[in-house]
Amino acid sequence: MSKSIKDILIEMKNMSELMVDLAYSALLFNSKDAAEEVIKLENKINRLNYQIKRESLLAARTVEDAEKLTALLEVGEATETIADSAKDIADLVLKGIRPHPVFKMVIEEAEEMIKRVKIAEGSELADKSLGELLLATRTGMTVIAVRRNESWIYGPDKNTILAAGDTLIAKGNETGGILLEKLANNEITLEDLEYGEIIED
Amino acid sequence: MSKSIKDILIEMKNMSELMVDLAYSALLFNSKDAAEEVIKLENKINRLNYQIKRESLLAARTVEDAEKLTALLEVGEATETIADSAKDIADLVLKGIRPHPVFKMVIEEAEEMIKRVKIAEGSELADKSLGELLLATRTGMTVIAVRRNESWIYGPDKNTILAAGDTLIAKGNETGGILLEKLANNEITLEDLEYGEIIED
Repeated sequence: MSKSIKDILIEMKNMSELMVDLAYSALLFNSKDAAEEVIKLENKINRLNYQIKRESLLAARTVEDAEKLTALLEVGEATETIADSAKDIADLVLKGIRPHPVFKMVIEEAEEMIKRVKIAEGSELADKSLGELLLATRTGMTVIAVRRNESWIYGPDKNTILAAGDTLIAKGNETGGILLEKLANNEITLEDLEYGEIIED
Repeated sequence: MSKSIKDILIEMKNMSELMVDLAYSALLFNSKDAAEEVIKLENKINRLNYQIKRESLLAARTVEDAEKLTALLEVGEATETIADSAKDIADLVLKGIRPHPVFKMVIEEAEEMIKRVKIAEGSELADKSLGELLLATRTGMTVIAVRRNESWIYGPDKNTILAAGDTLIAKGNETGGILLEKLANNEITLEDLEYGEIIED
């Protein structure tokens, strides 16, 4: 049981950090893509908090147990509150609220943007590790999370192997985002990038 | 006025992301240092949200203004809620609650830890940029934030110049944390690191 609570906690940490990052990015870059990912994550975090409560109640046998497990419940509640707040921010973006000009100013000055791309069949990104792909070097884009159906890989590293159908959440500049999208859509190859003819494409 | 709201928003984004990261790290690594930094940040975010409200009210002249500025107020509130939740997590650490064994398991498996160090007078870290210091290469530690008195530098980059008296929040493994601390305390020099005699020290 401890094993499962531990996994849930680590997942809640990763998810809530990603949600806060994505929610503000959605707002600052007016990205409905990012906002939609926040909503998906919020649903998942609510289910995890339910699991935390259930497992904690099942695990408490003595007063001492109960005291220790109270901390877990409190962390679960705090995490759900963080997730709800991130969702509130994402909702502003999805409601299509006309943003105050201040948001536009932020966007113009920002060096980074968030890009969401889905790996198509036949894309060179599929079945390779991030270490092999060297996307940061080749496109300037850093993959911050990978969604595979309903599961997530947070902070993927060089050993993370991508697959067709994966949704990548990446940060970088606009040019890099275009390159990443073309790679994911199988419109260009890694070799094309070497010749630097893509931007003019 | 727009300028100042924009700056406040960007600072709230950075602060709340750092708070969530530090709060969970405080919990997982049982770090009172990290928990104390969360409390400092929470006080600051409350003051920023107050500024958001004041500036928004002053800026609203028409119904249209008011509608646009409502989004700002909502973002401010969501940010304060995130900060409060991070503080709730940090409070668990500061209360010295006896953690459930699950937290210990998390710590043992974690590859990363959080280290807080203060740069002493005479330390080689002072008056150099992170780009010159190459701390990630030399010690394996990544500086995620710098506190200078009451102000913060989030996501410092290679151009960030450190100063004596700065508090660094860094991530890395335990060995790297010890090296960073010794550098900050002026107990070793960068040259010492080259000879690899520090670990046995």
